This record gives sequence, C-alpha cells and structure tokens, in this order.
Amino acid sequence: MNETGLSEEEIISLLGDAKSKDFSYDRVLSSMCTTPHAVAVKAHMQFIESNMGDFGLFKGTHAMEKEVIRMTGNMLHCPGAEGYLTTGGTESNIQAVRSMRNLHERKNSGPRLNVVVPASAHFSFDKISDVLDIEVRKASLDRDFKASAEAMASLIDENTVGLVAIAGSTEFGQVDPVEEISGLALKHGLPLHIDAAFGGFVLPFLEEKHAFDFSLQGVTSIAVDPHKMGLSTIPAGILLFRDFRHLDCLKAHAPYLTVDSQYTLTGTRSGAAVAATFAVMKFLGKEGYTATVSRCMEMTRYLIREASVLGVEPVIDPVMNVVTLKVPDPAFIRSTLSREYNWHVSITREPKALRLVIMPHMSRGMIDMFVSDLAKVVETVRHQRR
Amino acid sequence: MNETGLSEEEIISLLGDAKSKDFSYDRVLSSMCTTPHAVAVKAHMQFIESNMGDFGLFKGTHAMEKEVIRMTGNMLHCPGAEGYLTTGGTESNIQAVRSMRNLHERKNSGPRLNVVVPASAHFSFDKISDVLDIEVRKASLDRDFKASAEAMASLIDENTVGLVAIAGSTEFGQVDPVEEISGLALKHGLPLHIDAAFGGFVLPFLEEKHAFDFSLQGVTSIAVDPHKMGLSTIPAGILLFRDFRHLDCLKAHAPYLTVDSQYTLTGTRSGAAVAATFAVMKFLGKEGYTATVSRCMEMTRYLIREASVLGVEPVIDPVMNVVTLKVPDPAFIRSTLSREYNWHVSITREPKALRLVIMPHMSRGMIDMFVSDLAKVVETVRHQRR
Repeated sequence: MNETGLSEEEIISLLGDAKSKDFSYDRVLSSMCTTPHAVAVKAHMQFIESNMGDFGLFKGTHAMEKEVIRMTGNMLHCPGAEGYLTTGGTESNIQAVRSMRNLHERKNSGPRLNVVVPASAHFSFDKISDVLDIEVRKASLDRDFKASAEAMASLIDENTVGLVAIAGSTEFGQVDPVEEISGLALKHGLPLHIDAAFGGFVLPFLEEKHAFDFSLQGVTSIAVDPHKMGLSTIPAGILLFRDFRHLDCLKAHAPYLTVDSQYTLTGTRSGAAVAATFAVMKFLGKEGYTATVSRCMEMTRYLIREASVLGVEPVIDPVMNVVTLKVPDPAFIRSTLSREYNWHVSITREPKALRLVIMPHMSRGMIDMFVSDLAKVVETVRHQRR
Repeated sequence: MNETGLSEEEIISLLGDAKSKDFSYDRVLSSMCTTPHAVAVKAHMQFIESNMGDFGLFKGTHAMEKEVIRMTGNMLHCPGAEGYLTTGGTESNIQAVRSMRNLHERKNSGPRLNVVVPASAHFSFDKISDVLDIEVRKASLDRDFKASAEAMASLIDENTVGLVAIAGSTEFGQVDPVEEISGLALKHGLPLHIDAAFGGFVLPFLEEKHAFDFSLQGVTSIAVDPHKMGLSTIPAGILLFRDFRHLDCLKAHAPYLTVDSQYTLTGTRSGAAVAATFAVMKFLGKEGYTATVSRCMEMTRYLIREASVLGVEPVIDPVMNVVTLKVPDPAFIRSTLSREYNWHVSITREPKALRLVIMPHMSRGMIDMFVSDLAKVVETVRHQRR
C-alpha cells in the first residue's frame, strides 16, 4: 500500500466498472453456481463478521451450522451424520480422501496409497492427488458415462484407501451406480465417498428416485454444495460423515481459541455463508427445493426438444439439469456464441459436446433466445461444411 | 430436507435469536478478526454472486483480484509478485509449503520430507503436516519468543524442502529475525515462506520498521490476511510468490471452465471477498491503514500502562497490537472474565498468560471497562492466595 486512499465516490465508480465486465448470469449457461436466493443474501449480510474458525465466540452461528448439518443428514438418510460447512466441493473431497488415507492402516511403507474414482470425477481429484500425495486411479466408464463397478473393482489393491462415486457428474450430470459400488466398498471393507456437490440438492427432489446417499450401507461420506443448487451464497459446501471417527481423524489441536480443536481444512471460516445456508434451507424447505428442481428439469426437457428441432441431439438423455449437445465443431460454436452472441457455454472432454447447466437463474425466454442464436451458429458451421 | 418451508418473518426471528447468541466484538479481546470496514461490506454485497473459481465469467472481479495482488506486491516490496486471494492464512500456508514440497528434488525416496518452522508457528502447520504428509520440525525460540536462526539451522538436512518465519506471531505478536533467516535460506538454497497473516497489514504501517518481506532476498513467499488487520470481509487471505514457478507448480488442469487451469486449493471462490478487499485497500490507502495501526498501537500502550497500575506486567514489550499479561491463574481469570463479566480473552501456552488482541473494533472506553473488571478478578485471585 503505497497509494493514497480514494473517495467513496471513486470506489463506487471503480466497482461499477468491474461489475460491467462481469458477465450477468442471464448470459451464462455453463456454471454450476447461480444467483443466490434473496433470503440467503439477507442472512449473509446480517452475519458478515461472523467467524466459524473460532465458533465459541459465535455460538448462535454455530447452532445454525449444527442445524444445517442435522437437516442435511436427514435429507441424505443419516440423521446422526457428523460434519461441517466447507468452502465447497473441492475442500469436501480433499477432506473425505484425507480421512480415508488417515484411517488406512498401511500394510507396508513402500508403494503409494491410492483411491479409486470414476474417470468422470471432478478435476479436484487431480488436485487431491498432489495435495495429499496419493495416487488417484481412474476407472473407465460405461456407455452412459457412469462409473463401471467392475472397472473400479479391478483397480482395488492392498494400498487402496477408499472409493469415490459421483452423484451428478460435472460434465454430464450423470449418477453412478452407487448401490453396486456400495456393495463393492462393503465387500472390500473400504470407505466410500459420494461427490454429490452438484446432485445433493437435486436428486432428493427429483420425481425419479436414485439411490446415492447414506441409505446405502457402504456410503461413509457425502459432499453436497449449498452454493450450487442449494441457492446459498459462496463459500458454502457441506461434508458429512456417517461415523464420527472418520471426521475425528482430521482433528488439529487449536490453542488460543475458544474451542480446543478444529476439523476443518481452513482456519477462519465464513459464518455469513453458514447463516445464508441455514436461512435458505429453512425458507425453501422440501417444497421449495422440489419446485426449483422441477422448474430446472422442465427447462432442461424444453431445451432438449427445441435443440432437436434444429437437428441437434443430446449425448445422453439428461438425468439432472445438465444438457450436453452433439454439435459440429463444438469449440468453434462455443467461441462464436461467446464472441458474437454473448452466450457463455462450456464443452465436455470426451466426446466433445456443448455443455449447458440449466440453473435456477434461467428462464424459458432465455432458452428461446439462446436456441435462436445457436440455430444461426450451427447453420453457419453446416453451411461451411457443405 | 424433509421439512416445510418457513415464512420470511419466521426466518428473521430465527436469525435474530442466533445473532443474540453470537458475542458482539465489543466484548471480544481475543480475536484476530474484527468488524469489516463499511466500504468492504458494500463491495462484498455488490459482488455476492461472483465466483472466482471460474474467473473467465467474472472478468471485472478478476481484474480487481489482479489489482489487489499488484498493490500487495508493492506493499511488500516485490512489484511483480504473483499470487491469488485465498480463504485465509491456513490455505496460504498449506499452499506455500505444498509449493516447497513440489519444487524439492528428492535425493532419495526413503525418509520423509520436512519443513523447518519456529515453535511459535500457528497451529495450521500441524494441520499442514498431516494434509501434505510432511514432517514439521519446530525450532526453539529465543527469550523474546522469536525464532532462533541457529536452532532452525540445526534442524535442516537433505530432506528439508524449505523454511518458515513468522511476522506477527499469533500468541505474542512477535516478529522473527527474518533477515537472519533469509540469509540461512540463501545459504542452503531453500525457499523461505513468511507467515504474515496477522502482521502483513500491521508492520508496513508501524513507526518502527521491521525487515520481514520481499526486500530480503531469501524470502520467496508471503501470506497476509486482509480479513484480519486489512479490514476486509471473510474469506480473504493473500498468498504471494516472488517467482511464478513457485505458484505454477500448484497448477491443476481445469476442463469445462472458461479458464484451463487453477492454482488455488479450493475450487469455487468468493468474488465478494475479492471486491471487498479491493474496495477497502483502495479506500484506506497508506494513510488509512497507518491511522488504523497507530490507533491500535496507542490503545495497546494504554492497556499496558493501565494494567501496570494493577501490578500486572506484560510478558514481552508489545511489537504489534497483541498484549500478553502475566496474571496469577490465567485459566481461572479467563473463565471468570467470560462467565461473570462477558469479556472474551484467550491464554497463551508457554508461559501461560492472558492474551489480548487490540483490534480496530476496540476503543479506550472498552479498555477502561475491561481493566476495571480485570482489576476485580485479579484482586479476588490475590485475596484467595493470601
């Protein structure tokens, strides 16, 4: 800080400039985050100074955190689940794998330990491999981009510390055969973590039911993100363990705080996001989330139908509110949509396809406008190819 | 979520209940966090939905992050420093040690790698030891609770990946002899990380100058926390590297985002805290922070004088705005202050003493009230001992 302070007017002007360069969610179809609910934002503001890193000073916020854990445990069929509010899916996944690693009794000191995940696992698992110094073994997928329990089984050895399955994959919104993988975990006596960062606030509210949570006996931990489909503010993730021992092995002794130990990866933690999550979960309840998910699924089916009219078909029939479209030259279409039409979409890796996440900030009107622009771009590509 | 949604009035009432159970910062003398500046809170709100995990969608917020990095690099005497906004000191420290570990060329695969830190290092280093699977070697302190460069030197071996020094220790607010430790790092060709999570927004603005930053050639990375003395909102930490290669070795490939790689520990990241940090740094500038620090240091000296009148002396002469007081039976005094007088203080480990952090939310009036209650409690203990 060598500079002179600016006036409040100057700050407001700088912030306005920055805001105008951020894309509005009205033009974003690639994000698993969305505009948080107004109730969440209000609660966030009211607890803006609250620090869950020293929750003995913030007993009210801490009680809200415990209530969020209780409600989420109920939602995921384990009323007594233990856990805490993380910064999001990546921290939850790091901590779940760290717990597996810490619980594992090394048979020998030589080879590296490993965790077996589906090839569809979020890229945070590559980060985890480096952070925790553990091998991440990626099992091949079936034709529907679901984990193959057989492929996972073939990668398990005596240095395997645990398994991971995905409930709502980042690229395809696909749900792994968790029941089968749960059986595999039980058979090998391994912990099983479910990455439901995206699906955790979708699957319980879908008409079609999927078995993915603690109702399956082999499932030992689950990550769900309120700051995605939970409509809370950033940073809000939840990590739940069925068994307290799996959380307890993450304990660090914390001197000079009001509490004497910490299970979290970070130290200082946002109490604001805890309050926001509490408020929006209490406000929406089961009906509110069901309505949100239904609306997103309706828009998802609508987009599929409209794309089909253009002769553009989905890679898989959507399980959740993620649409992947088979288009010619996806990279070109993506960049053209961004550059010329201010639509922000993403592409999947294999096969290459347009990827659209149908979040609550979207509307039918937005989809109509998008499909109309997509039609032009697809037509251009087809024309060039003729 | 099995429950029915509540009304907005019911939510407001629940939040009010929770708020009443959180302690007000008016009664807290143990926290390194404080009430964020109003300008920070406003900016936080304006960017509440911004996600730095996919900063290609939030180019305005990302430009603010780059400006914060630039300003902080200047403040710490390395204009070209590279880095990013973390969730706070713990993440910054994890990432700095991870970088050292990744840069280290293993001489042999047998023994564990290690990092040498002062015994005064924050407890996050115990967490780091477990997370990164690295030995944390703690060097003894000198009589003033500063790291002893000699003790650190004696712990270095061929498996040492780097050194850490503290600029503003959590317990005593002490500053290590960083110049000497920098020399040690250069001599051994090791990276040196400075944990200035607390001191980073204090030391540059003190009358008495301390050499602790990139002006010392051996210093390779620094952690500073805007959500402590920077008066920003939670979660706002900054991690800076002198050399881009030290950041680059943390890279994870990020498919399906607008950006193709991520250096951060978490995925989704609060753009709100980025905006808040940008706004408050721009608003306060050098004079603003100098005034804040001066006021805290004046209150620190005032508290020392007032305590002295009670016959209570500090463990060390304060270097920063942390006061440690030698009292009889500190644990009893702490709990009595909390239970009977609603004052929240903490205690140090060795020697046991009352620990008070004199943050910007404090005032002379608050100190007067506190000292008056402290007098009563100390008198009770002395009386019992007679």
